[in-house]
Amino acid sequence: MNSFTLDPALSRDTIEIMKLELCYLGLMNDKRYPWLILVPMRAEMVELIDLQPEDQQQLLTEINQVSHLLQSVFSPHKLNIATLGNMVRQLHIHIIARDQTDPAWPGPIWGIGSAQPYNKDEADSIIARLTTRLMS
Amino acid sequence: MNSFTLDPALSRDTIEIMKLELCYLGLMNDKRYPWLILVPMRAEMVELIDLQPEDQQQLLTEINQVSHLLQSVFSPHKLNIATLGNMVRQLHIHIIARDQTDPAWPGPIWGIGSAQPYNKDEADSIIARLTTRLMS
Repeated sequence: MNSFTLDPALSRDTIEIMKLELCYLGLMNDKRYPWLILVPMRAEMVELIDLQPEDQQQLLTEINQVSHLLQSVFSPHKLNIATLGNMVRQLHIHIIARDQTDPAWPGPIWGIGSAQPYNKDEADSIIARLTTRLMS
Repeated sequence: MNSFTLDPALSRDTIEIMKLELCYLGLMNDKRYPWLILVPMRAEMVELIDLQPEDQQQLLTEINQVSHLLQSVFSPHKLNIATLGNMVRQLHIHIIARDQTDPAWPGPIWGIGSAQPYNKDEADSIIARLTTRLMS
């Protein structure tokens, strides 16, 4: 039985873009960076190696899909991909489009300053751009 | 032609453990954390999506192998896995065994304080432990 529920902190901090085959795809509600989160919709996963091999394969496919998405929409200088989970243990993967002008560059983005939430128009606009590209 | 050479910063900051099928496996010379680095031995790779699909598959295999290695040797509270590349562009993957008592917990480890290099005996000892487990 797969009784997946999204961790409350991930639910609070992200805006749902769509559900992929394996993962919930969310936009981190922080307009300082184009910052997406993939959460495999499997119960009680903490580490990457907790996933079944076929789910790991699908996760890799979705990481590639989201990486290409961010490259095509934002043309970043660098992608950052990470699974940390020190604070939120539910397995989740950060994929962030980094630029040399962003406020944390060249350091990592976690723990730097405070999130700047999108207003509704901004969120609608970026999610529309991402969804359109994902469906194309 | 594959004219791979390890980036000078990665060469300076790591101690070679061994070469796996795809990746150079190095120990970050910082005894504050059990911190390993995988570097696919392919020329001019920057992003994960630059790798050919078969190399991505092998990288996933080696990430799993190194994750199990760190779990079995150090029993960490959490593994952190990341490819950032903001400072060193050559594609490399960090796999770090994190504990709630380590100096950066619960934050990420990058950019926190200064590396504490192993002395020769310490480095020999940890590399022997890792290598023995890898070969078993």
